[in-house]
Amino acid sequence: MNDASGPDRSMLGRAFGVLNCFSVDRPRQTQSDLSRRTGLPLPTVHRLCAQLVEQGALVRGADGRYEIGVRLWELGALAPRAHGLRQVAMPYLEDLYEATHENVQLVVREGTEALYIERISARGAVAVVGRAGGRLPLHASSGGLVLLAHGGPDLLDAVLAAGLERFTPSTITTEHRLRQVLDEIRRTGFVVCREHLNLGTLAVAAPILRRTGAVVASISVVVGVAEDPAPLVPALRAAALGISRGLA
Amino acid sequence: MNDASGPDRSMLGRAFGVLNCFSVDRPRQTQSDLSRRTGLPLPTVHRLCAQLVEQGALVRGADGRYEIGVRLWELGALAPRAHGLRQVAMPYLEDLYEATHENVQLVVREGTEALYIERISARGAVAVVGRAGGRLPLHASSGGLVLLAHGGPDLLDAVLAAGLERFTPSTITTEHRLRQVLDEIRRTGFVVCREHLNLGTLAVAAPILRRTGAVVASISVVVGVAEDPAPLVPALRAAALGISRGLA
Repeated sequence: MNDASGPDRSMLGRAFGVLNCFSVDRPRQTQSDLSRRTGLPLPTVHRLCAQLVEQGALVRGADGRYEIGVRLWELGALAPRAHGLRQVAMPYLEDLYEATHENVQLVVREGTEALYIERISARGAVAVVGRAGGRLPLHASSGGLVLLAHGGPDLLDAVLAAGLERFTPSTITTEHRLRQVLDEIRRTGFVVCREHLNLGTLAVAAPILRRTGAVVASISVVVGVAEDPAPLVPALRAAALGISRGLA
Repeated sequence: MNDASGPDRSMLGRAFGVLNCFSVDRPRQTQSDLSRRTGLPLPTVHRLCAQLVEQGALVRGADGRYEIGVRLWELGALAPRAHGLRQVAMPYLEDLYEATHENVQLVVREGTEALYIERISARGAVAVVGRAGGRLPLHASSGGLVLLAHGGPDLLDAVLAAGLERFTPSTITTEHRLRQVLDEIRRTGFVVCREHLNLGTLAVAAPILRRTGAVVASISVVVGVAEDPAPLVPALRAAALGISRGLA
């Protein structure tokens, strides 16, 4: 962005710098935390926090710590590529959940990572990494691999350049193997990942397409590694096709 | 907020002014739309949009229209009073949904309105007003009445001052009747609303409490008006108590 409006720009940049300090692991922070993490002086953080509270983007708790405000959640819920997609997908995810009683997930790509938009988990289902609003690597998650398979060569280059981190002995960590798997996903329309991200789980994923053929999201089901994935595939693909049709 | 930092403040205020133009009814907007709605000159809107895109708060579509970006959804998903609450509530909402196969809703208060954090609807369930990320009046919705009953005298004064809008012949529109119903909610721990907001539906709601006793949310079930609400009440109250315990 070649925008020369220095002071304005850095003002908004600083405000988002404060907001970006919040994460799944750090949902509540003091002004000192925010000052340390942004590198901004305490008086600046103090002023930014007051303004963000005024806009409803932050809320100050009784203990003086700040948290993301409901108003920001409400604004975020207007994102068509997150909440809008979720609204269309939800009935299908619920059907899939009722049919399998396992972990059912809806995933989109944000930059070079997979972002979980929704997850429905049975209380008895296997424990999985990833929560709604959390991120996972594209190359090591089933939903991420589907997005990577349809993300074009520039995305693949960026993912390869960042390096293929190993999470388990079965994580895909070579370019050769990754290209093989991505080709297979494009050919078959689904992927089965056995212990790629954590030991003990197996995940199956399929793409969600717009009418244009562009892949906008993926859905996955995560089960115990001892289970047979074959019966899951038709249900998962049917749900993915249903959501794709719903988006058209 | 008595903050004298004029230019900075108005910068952030203007940026949120642009974001606040987006709504359920207006998820996508051109720069001209935004200029008209904010009253800001087009060059200012142009610059603000570029900066908001840079932060991931907005995304520009192929047709030149802007929409709320996934990054804002991701940030909003960190709001403990929305997404955090939802994470705790979701298994209970799912159980309630499986037991009733009707509309199940999770509602919090934002200012003088009720905000839907979650809704699970069976495809065969009665159609209801309200979606996740949407708002409804406190005095005319079952979940809203529960929040109003526990919101203190200042909130009640504000709601009365704003006026009790009529949606159906059964909407509560007098202060006397409203005070009666709120007393009853505080006494019984639930409310049954028969066609208060739309004809043909009946809603039952119960409060979710923190350990301190403060009511932070409510859950409701919406069914056809011909149904008997009595069997729903114990299931709803049990779910509300479960979520309350989960928050402790």
